[in-house]
Amino acid sequence: MYELGVVYRNIKRTDRATTDGLASLGSATVHEAMGRVGLLKPYMRPIYAGAQVSGTAVTVLLHPGDNWMMHVVAEQIQPGDIVVAAITAECTDGYFGDLLATSFQARGARALVIDAGVRDVKTLTEMNFPVWSKAISSKGTIKATIGSVNIPVVCAGMLVTPGDVIVADDDGVVCVPAALAAKTLESARAREANEGEKRAKLASGVLGLDMYKMREPLEKAGLKYID
Amino acid sequence: MYELGVVYRNIKRTDRATTDGLASLGSATVHEAMGRVGLLKPYMRPIYAGAQVSGTAVTVLLHPGDNWMMHVVAEQIQPGDIVVAAITAECTDGYFGDLLATSFQARGARALVIDAGVRDVKTLTEMNFPVWSKAISSKGTIKATIGSVNIPVVCAGMLVTPGDVIVADDDGVVCVPAALAAKTLESARAREANEGEKRAKLASGVLGLDMYKMREPLEKAGLKYID
Amino acid sequence: MYELGVVYRNIKRTDRATTDGLASLGSATVHEAMGRVGLLKPYMRPIYAGAQVSGTAVTVLLHPGDNWMMHVVAEQIQPGDIVVAAITAECTDGYFGDLLATSFQARGARALVIDAGVRDVKTLTEMNFPVWSKAISSKGTIKATIGSVNIPVVCAGMLVTPGDVIVADDDGVVCVPAALAAKTLESARAREANEGEKRAKLASGVLGLDMYKMREPLEKAGLKYID
Amino acid sequence: MYELGVVYRNIKRTDRATTDGLASLGSATVHEAMGRVGLLKPYMRPIYAGAQVSGTAVTVLLHPGDNWMMHVVAEQIQPGDIVVAAITAECTDGYFGDLLATSFQARGARALVIDAGVRDVKTLTEMNFPVWSKAISSKGTIKATIGSVNIPVVCAGMLVTPGDVIVADDDGVVCVPAALAAKTLESARAREANEGEKRAKLASGVLGLDMYKMREPLEKAGLKYID
Amino acid sequence: MYELGVVYRNIKRTDRATTDGLASLGSATVHEAMGRVGLLKPYMRPIYAGAQVSGTAVTVLLHPGDNWMMHVVAEQIQPGDIVVAAITAECTDGYFGDLLATSFQARGARALVIDAGVRDVKTLTEMNFPVWSKAISSKGTIKATIGSVNIPVVCAGMLVTPGDVIVADDDGVVCVPAALAAKTLESARAREANEGEKRAKLASGVLGLDMYKMREPLEKAGLKYID
Amino acid sequence: MYELGVVYRNIKRTDRATTDGLASLGSATVHEAMGRVGLLKPYMRPIYAGAQVSGTAVTVLLHPGDNWMMHVVAEQIQPGDIVVAAITAECTDGYFGDLLATSFQARGARALVIDAGVRDVKTLTEMNFPVWSKAISSKGTIKATIGSVNIPVVCAGMLVTPGDVIVADDDGVVCVPAALAAKTLESARAREANEGEKRAKLASGVLGLDMYKMREPLEKAGLKYID
Repeated sequence: MYELGVVYRNIKRTDRATTDGLASLGSATVHEAMGRVGLLKPYMRPIYAGAQVSGTAVTVLLHPGDNWMMHVVAEQIQPGDIVVAAITAECTDGYFGDLLATSFQARGARALVIDAGVRDVKTLTEMNFPVWSKAISSKGTIKATIGSVNIPVVCAGMLVTPGDVIVADDDGVVCVPAALAAKTLESARAREANEGEKRAKLASGVLGLDMYKMREPLEKAGLKYID
Repeated sequence: MYELGVVYRNIKRTDRATTDGLASLGSATVHEAMGRVGLLKPYMRPIYAGAQVSGTAVTVLLHPGDNWMMHVVAEQIQPGDIVVAAITAECTDGYFGDLLATSFQARGARALVIDAGVRDVKTLTEMNFPVWSKAISSKGTIKATIGSVNIPVVCAGMLVTPGDVIVADDDGVVCVPAALAAKTLESARAREANEGEKRAKLASGVLGLDMYKMREPLEKAGLKYID
Repeated sequence: MYELGVVYRNIKRTDRATTDGLASLGSATVHEAMGRVGLLKPYMRPIYAGAQVSGTAVTVLLHPGDNWMMHVVAEQIQPGDIVVAAITAECTDGYFGDLLATSFQARGARALVIDAGVRDVKTLTEMNFPVWSKAISSKGTIKATIGSVNIPVVCAGMLVTPGDVIVADDDGVVCVPAALAAKTLESARAREANEGEKRAKLASGVLGLDMYKMREPLEKAGLKYID
Repeated sequence: MYELGVVYRNIKRTDRATTDGLASLGSATVHEAMGRVGLLKPYMRPIYAGAQVSGTAVTVLLHPGDNWMMHVVAEQIQPGDIVVAAITAECTDGYFGDLLATSFQARGARALVIDAGVRDVKTLTEMNFPVWSKAISSKGTIKATIGSVNIPVVCAGMLVTPGDVIVADDDGVVCVPAALAAKTLESARAREANEGEKRAKLASGVLGLDMYKMREPLEKAGLKYID
Repeated sequence: MYELGVVYRNIKRTDRATTDGLASLGSATVHEAMGRVGLLKPYMRPIYAGAQVSGTAVTVLLHPGDNWMMHVVAEQIQPGDIVVAAITAECTDGYFGDLLATSFQARGARALVIDAGVRDVKTLTEMNFPVWSKAISSKGTIKATIGSVNIPVVCAGMLVTPGDVIVADDDGVVCVPAALAAKTLESARAREANEGEKRAKLASGVLGLDMYKMREPLEKAGLKYID
Repeated sequence: MYELGVVYRNIKRTDRATTDGLASLGSATVHEAMGRVGLLKPYMRPIYAGAQVSGTAVTVLLHPGDNWMMHVVAEQIQPGDIVVAAITAECTDGYFGDLLATSFQARGARALVIDAGVRDVKTLTEMNFPVWSKAISSKGTIKATIGSVNIPVVCAGMLVTPGDVIVADDDGVVCVPAALAAKTLESARAREANEGEKRAKLASGVLGLDMYKMREPLEKAGLKYID
């Protein structure tokens, strides 16, 4: 349940170096490094292909069809943040367009993650302002009801606490809790370190069956080959 | 409920200048200018990114899995029209491909809006013939049952009357009733007129909170800031 | 129902010439040529636009959240194959990423068709390894339970037997049973043969109503024109 | 597109005898009698099994999350009416509960058909006030924005004009336009008249194949029997 | 892919005793006994609660919106059969109502399992003729295109071969291949045999943790208790 | 993000009197009393109609297709609890059946709320053990991976903290945070107190328009009546 009508101005952001280090590893590797948790539901899709970012979460809770708090959260953005927007009920309206994106970008935001719709996606693409959303919709919103900023929110099924690290790319969006960020970065880097070698082996025709020594466990599990 | 088996040859189209003027404003601005109504459901998506058109609606009512009337509506197309296709039940079949698109384009159609599926999307993209649809599907259709042309239809949840203006882009599809088109164009232009100035302010770091004088109403609504 | 825990090493593949001939015809024409059957459900979408392939089906049955058998199927791939992956229950996890794609590509696979999710789609796009899937998801999988390889599977609602021909493009995925492949190729080529002429006529403004002689049957069906 | 902010007080209702006669025929027979059109989408489900009603449509257009107009439409209800509620965007909120049902019932309404959610379904069931809806939800609504009463609306994909006949039962909801109601009643009764005889034959083991003389057309269509 | 236009008159049905023995065990136990496979997708729901049946599968393949083959399959029903109906594309139309149910029941059918819609559900309930379906819909169908009877079909994602055993109850629908039916019955009975004892223990307050000796493996898996 | 592999044995439950007092008020009234927040998504449906309960939340986090932790949470149940089960990814498998229900009931649990599937619903209904779930499915689960018990979880889009009050009935499921329970009870009772009087007025034909004095604000909002 949410605390309504409050804006927390001081949040503890994950340190910049750790946050920034996670971007290039990508959401899939980071998700693995955390033990296969932290992923927002896969209906969250980028408005254009190719963006790959990480940033510290600044959260906003909105009401269905009402984007008033988007202007409130804009003021709380610091360079390197990613805004994470949750809605109190299911909604696909277009809460966010090119004007708000101009404001967010001017404040230093790197992206928006929103469990609802966006619009002006052609302009957002030209601006290089990436958004991960549930929908794209021309439908506008009103400014009538207050929500909250920088409270823990549930976005696309995942609990996001202000200051957590968000990693997003074409594969989806992962939330890394602040307390686990450093360890996750280390673990994700370790996973990636030997990927080059594995890729070279696989490219040369070596099978994963042999590289990962799977033949024996598969046989033990009962797998039969039939000619 | 629909009148079946009729083709209305004479429809009153919104005048060309008004219709054409709406394209560059885009579906989001036009939707706002009408008071946030007129939008087809957001599951209507373009088959390729970047197209932005307006045109006068020529409507066709089809049966599930049957595209016979597509050939009938082709004859009723005049340059500057957009064909709006509704189905009497939910269907994702591919009613429309490159041959029909060649015919529609030759008649002067600017686009197709269909509450079902299309196919040959690679060729349609190369032809620069935009389609907004519910699905993409190879599944073909038969030619066995008659529907109607140029009757009012419900397409993706919205009532579209022949001669109405359709505005479509990456954000979605809006229907502007003929009677409201001139007023909507004026109102949409007015909205857009001061967007440049707003954008410049926001880009310079001015907050929407101040630009729109929201701080006082937010406080009155009970918003609390916590340090 | 599925036979679990078996790998059939020897399957009868449709001959190469027939298989390869179907690619350029595309899924929509092939689907028509078969009498409008054989299409996987239209939720199967390519991870990037423009790929158009055909290949012989090598099948794999997986459990939800478990991609162990992906390594087993890799060994059974021969150049020109397309891997068709079915899951025993609905799942959107990312079963397949760039490492497996490297291995599949090294073995000669042309594509993957999977009734679940994939990840690393940015890298897969750069590798030119096309995938048709139900979802894109960072969510990884485990390797704990055995399924089967090269048994008949149901993928996206369609029965696929090892050795069948798969034809996939932006419009969707079609399965052509081995026994019908030669006849389908012939029939699809015949359909396409006179498409150029039809397209030229339609482009010149001739109506389908006249080209296909539809006016009389439409009148018989009761269609009325109203001025 | 909708006319907003208006209440039409005088609508032409289909005559009572015709309207009432349609109830016992049921939605499936009425739908057939109209030529298989007029059905609201099948996601419209009754909140309890067994209710079977017909009535004259009184329409109301609501905004997402706002049920203010429900109180406005209550005043326009006459005995024998069924309220048909459409929403300007997709919404599953609970717009209607036991208090409004008490008011509607006191005014003589026979049912509610709503393209959104309802609540207090246990009490509505005890009150014998049937509702066909898209969802059941505790989520309440506000009273802030005006819509319209007794304008033509699109409800669950179907255009409903005030005064049309609504027929609803466990199979779904059908809208019969006022102009077609008398003819539809006649035609539906004719369909039903010989159903008893057919049922008796089928119950005795006579096959539809013989009763409807289908064997020859099936053979002509190419059906083969294999022993 | 399906063979179209054929009716197989002679199918090998699973023996009656085995088939009938599976009903009382229920779909969940039977599904477990087969190794957690064989289940039709869980969107298949009974039209009324409480029915629990088993029977031998007689299959029918239908086209979208066309129920002609329902009359053809009726002739192939033998007492103790369950009709399993698949459609060549997604469809929610009401293919089956009280007249067909009368015919099926007269032929000895125990139930219908259909990957589409049914209607007249009130009457079907009164007739005690259970149906498991994807939808309920008044929407009628035509009789224009032939499909097939008693070919293997994919119904709700599962391959069903004529003569297989279908077990259906409030939990869903399971298909037991003929070859596995005897073994599955034995295994399902074994599972059920000691359920009574387990239930008594659990009812007395014994925990599954102790009854199944899970404490040690949970500890090994790393589970920590925190006071 | 979730803490995995932990069982919190000591949680602070909302006091019994407050918890129990909320049941009879129902989910709709309680949801209103909290300011229209706290509702789990409306896809959460009861397995049988008529149950109306409240209880203190004991939470469990499960993996897709794995119900091992259900046995762990059973030990933590105290009389008057409701088990709230969340899954780390979308899943419709049947995690819970009559044996676990026997155990839960023996421990004093009043209900289960699960963002996945259940089975044995016929037996659960006979046992009077209510469940609110996303699905009903025969599909069984394995016991291989550990999750957690009594951590805060996101269930059907709502954050539930152990010890919160759950109120569930035919309209849905509401979570009342422990800190707000007493106030919510008071406020919900106040709402209900004057409902009887309102109902009597409405039943006598008084309109909500007059009872709530809406005519003036509606006129101010621009509503026009047309004769």
